[in-house]
Amino acid sequence: MARFFIDELPLCGTEYTLTGENAEHAKVLRLRPGEEVALCDGRGSECVGTVLEGLRLQISASCPSLGEPKTAVRIYIAFPKADKAEHVIQKATELGAAEIILFPTAFCVSRPDEKSLKKKLERWQKIARSAAEQSRRGVIPVVRAHNSYTAALRDAAAANLPILFYENERARTLRAAMEAFLGETNGSALDALPQPSSNEAPSLHGDGAGRQPAIALMTGAEGGFSEEEIAEAEAAGMKICTLGPRILRCETAPLAALSAVMYALGEM
Amino acid sequence: MARFFIDELPLCGTEYTLTGENAEHAKVLRLRPGEEVALCDGRGSECVGTVLEGLRLQISASCPSLGEPKTAVRIYIAFPKADKAEHVIQKATELGAAEIILFPTAFCVSRPDEKSLKKKLERWQKIARSAAEQSRRGVIPVVRAHNSYTAALRDAAAANLPILFYENERARTLRAAMEAFLGETNGSALDALPQPSSNEAPSLHGDGAGRQPAIALMTGAEGGFSEEEIAEAEAAGMKICTLGPRILRCETAPLAALSAVMYALGEM
Repeated sequence: MARFFIDELPLCGTEYTLTGENAEHAKVLRLRPGEEVALCDGRGSECVGTVLEGLRLQISASCPSLGEPKTAVRIYIAFPKADKAEHVIQKATELGAAEIILFPTAFCVSRPDEKSLKKKLERWQKIARSAAEQSRRGVIPVVRAHNSYTAALRDAAAANLPILFYENERARTLRAAMEAFLGETNGSALDALPQPSSNEAPSLHGDGAGRQPAIALMTGAEGGFSEEEIAEAEAAGMKICTLGPRILRCETAPLAALSAVMYALGEM
Repeated sequence: MARFFIDELPLCGTEYTLTGENAEHAKVLRLRPGEEVALCDGRGSECVGTVLEGLRLQISASCPSLGEPKTAVRIYIAFPKADKAEHVIQKATELGAAEIILFPTAFCVSRPDEKSLKKKLERWQKIARSAAEQSRRGVIPVVRAHNSYTAALRDAAAANLPILFYENERARTLRAAMEAFLGETNGSALDALPQPSSNEAPSLHGDGAGRQPAIALMTGAEGGFSEEEIAEAEAAGMKICTLGPRILRCETAPLAALSAVMYALGEM
């Protein structure tokens, strides 16, 4: 079933006409009368529309979106080279990330200026929207950026479980960090944390606002992190972890970590 | 430390000169006298070479490669469109796959003929080699192909845990399948299975030959699997699983599954 994100869901029993980008997309899909599509508000609610003719839909009852993880997993990636950011944003959206946040580090080759970053963020947000449609997400992950490593650390460290992956870390594994987190209150760490009420849609911005437990996963750019950056991260409260003895590329690490965390949370 | 795969390791105390592709690669890296590099036989053993001058190395004692998973995880992917196979092969190598096996399905758009497949396999094997060097693998995963779905099923079903991911499966999760497998003998299923002896290098071909427990992870092409194919897979002994409520692209699914399995095996 094709999926369209719109600002506000139409009422049940009314008619709705697709507009703008959704209309363009619908034309490409060549929707036929009688076909059903999903309209989603990107905040966790959706309804079914049956094609009447062209872009006109007959709306049926709305329901909560399926497929949103109970825990908000945020991906913090240092600006990578070339189109790797687009790749990570697309895949992280499929895999259920709540937010994707970019930031500069000492070893970053890519350092977009303010003007070019604004353009990139617009493009990245479109990629997240399109990936959310294709993967049947109920929420479009927000893509945003920090202009300093320190600001990114402060943001990430506010999560219930803030992890930074460092290739020179040998001892602490992601698994050890996850098990400690999940086992903190005899396996009910997540239950003990504030949960979204069942009638309340998850926040579009996935920022939790105290309602959803959050995990932050932070990875470096091509050159990794400097020793000074790791010291700063530890002081800020990040847990420094390894992703195992194999060295992952900067575009592979965040997706491998996200997949593993979704598995550990019972989302896979 | 730069890493070069060679056919046979030189003896400790001897000199060795890099040749062929390794020499080309070394020139790009601009190795300097005194710098150390790793020479690896791709079968789980390696030694250190100290640059004397140009491509000449002084060889020190050899040791087993670190970074090889204890369990052979094989990735079976239906021929995807365009350069997606290259992407999956590169990333699956980084993530520790033992083998990557391609096969046709009813919904495959890409159907390489014998001649073009031979060329592609050569190229794919080079990609696996290069990714193994960069990610510090001790073994180069073998990339191979089957010319029928039935043959691929027979191959995959011989693993200790053979899983096929199907987007219309709702009940059985990867996690349930992994936990049943790991818990079969009170958490010691892996210990109970034949293991490579500690003095014996893992097989280059990762085919186990009865020495290593193996997990097979099978995913479809852009259009997924047909109902008939799922019935055939079940009859062949594959466990049909879901990767969760989000629909993953055909190039995302095998890497997400591989990451999750490596996490479950304690490799991450």
